[in-house]
Amino acid sequence: MSEHKLLLLSKYAQEYQRLIAAAGLPGLELVVASSPGEARAQAADCDLVFGEPVLIREVLPRLPRLRWVQVTWAGVEPLLGPEARRDYLLTNARGVFGDLMSEYVFAYLLLHERRILARYLAQQDHRWDATETGVLRGKRIGLLGVGSIGAVLAHTAKHFKMSVYGYTRGSEGCPDVDAYYHGAALLAFAFGLDYLVSLLPGTPETHHLVNASLLGALPARAVFVSVGRGSVVDEDALAEALRTGRLAGAVLDVFEQEPLPPEHIFWSTPNLLISSHTAAPSFPEDVTGLFIENYRLFLEGQALKYRVDFERGY
Amino acid sequence: MSEHKLLLLSKYAQEYQRLIAAAGLPGLELVVASSPGEARAQAADCDLVFGEPVLIREVLPRLPRLRWVQVTWAGVEPLLGPEARRDYLLTNARGVFGDLMSEYVFAYLLLHERRILARYLAQQDHRWDATETGVLRGKRIGLLGVGSIGAVLAHTAKHFKMSVYGYTRGSEGCPDVDAYYHGAALLAFAFGLDYLVSLLPGTPETHHLVNASLLGALPARAVFVSVGRGSVVDEDALAEALRTGRLAGAVLDVFEQEPLPPEHIFWSTPNLLISSHTAAPSFPEDVTGLFIENYRLFLEGQALKYRVDFERGY
Repeated sequence: MSEHKLLLLSKYAQEYQRLIAAAGLPGLELVVASSPGEARAQAADCDLVFGEPVLIREVLPRLPRLRWVQVTWAGVEPLLGPEARRDYLLTNARGVFGDLMSEYVFAYLLLHERRILARYLAQQDHRWDATETGVLRGKRIGLLGVGSIGAVLAHTAKHFKMSVYGYTRGSEGCPDVDAYYHGAALLAFAFGLDYLVSLLPGTPETHHLVNASLLGALPARAVFVSVGRGSVVDEDALAEALRTGRLAGAVLDVFEQEPLPPEHIFWSTPNLLISSHTAAPSFPEDVTGLFIENYRLFLEGQALKYRVDFERGY
Repeated sequence: MSEHKLLLLSKYAQEYQRLIAAAGLPGLELVVASSPGEARAQAADCDLVFGEPVLIREVLPRLPRLRWVQVTWAGVEPLLGPEARRDYLLTNARGVFGDLMSEYVFAYLLLHERRILARYLAQQDHRWDATETGVLRGKRIGLLGVGSIGAVLAHTAKHFKMSVYGYTRGSEGCPDVDAYYHGAALLAFAFGLDYLVSLLPGTPETHHLVNASLLGALPARAVFVSVGRGSVVDEDALAEALRTGRLAGAVLDVFEQEPLPPEHIFWSTPNLLISSHTAAPSFPEDVTGLFIENYRLFLEGQALKYRVDFERGY
């Protein structure tokens, strides 16, 4: 007999179902749906939910027995509206995106140093472009936010012999960060950086933290990379900094509105690369492991991992 | 009084001169030239030479007192013709290119996984391209040649959680290589690779080692990266493999003839990226360190580092 009934609500429901079934978890009955409409009919007596926040938001008010939600994303903004319920445990996906984000960020940092796009365009003209390459070695990277993802980025930056600066609320736990900055030291943090990477979650405190003032504190040679949440960036200020050459480049994976609307200024902003929120996908084989780990803790009455603080927003 | 007279013969003669002067080496007189023509007038009584192999080749027959040549490149082919003299110590640049090559190779591997060029082209059409990314993690890289550069590449590959395979004449010294192959096991080495990277020097033994047979042993998803010497690659066979889709892509820094001639088939070969011999420049601040180190050994009568074996060719 099953003690717990899990609503599995995901675009990738079948793959998650296969992976969860393969784990043979005790006492667990599954209700599988790939859309909120599909879920509604059978969800009423589910006490657990696993899936994407945008889908879960739609069924959240209809789950009277709800005790725990494990989401497949890092970002939980869809579940944090002012009227959203908070009478359950919410855990997000962490620890699985660091490697993916590291591959993403360093793909674009190396692209920039190696002038790959310029060489690609030269090649279209059958032109031998031996312009000397830049190097990452010795350059300075600044991480806005140093959690589990930031720690992996810092480690990769050290592998490439860069200097690493971190801006956090107060934590200083990552050994690969050479110097930490907090609070009012934001502009001092930006000074002299070759690369600024935003890893911040979307919360009221981080809203438009990357604004004209911060961008103005960066050297003109700097490149900004945005892989946290789009709301962190004042998009008009960024477009202006790029248009006027105050900033050498930007690489954006996240935006205030996604998909980026067809009329958005970023489509015609120079030296800006758009990667359409592909930096760190939630691969089911990674994320299922988190659910399984937490389900075992849940059965034992232990504290769950990666619990979201509703007040803090991450 | 100077015991030794150094011919500094380099395109970057002034920068090398500044760096060598700053080191304050004992007993050393400098003759500085940025072309063979400039060098000829004063070179006759130089016993040491430091510079680029293509320039040194031109003055080599006119140096009766020659004892030692330190070149600024890894490749020494210009000094190894059948009629070239061999009555001196030849040392090349090693140990300084690993980091640069690692940045280069992983720039292009990550470019491929992240589909950056496809996303860049989508962006030109104002199109949100959320095609799922590939990842390096778990992929297989094969290194053709595992010397000091290969060891750094292997280490970076392990940082990105790849499997690493090495093909060498016999050496098995790098701890980051998961499995070694030698001699006749070349096709077994190629089996199942996602990436094949040639780091081989240009010698009679390595001539066209990357041919139709080796390329045919790679999976169709594989990408070939060429950063050793161009003569290692059968260019017609490579163009054919790319044209027919037998191979997913190639990234070429070196060629049989450089600059690549305007009529070369590679300019119109699909899925091929050309980086115009920019992968690992000889930065004077790196290479001068090697000269200084070896000059001190030379003064003490010790064995020099990075000595080239004229028979072996590297």
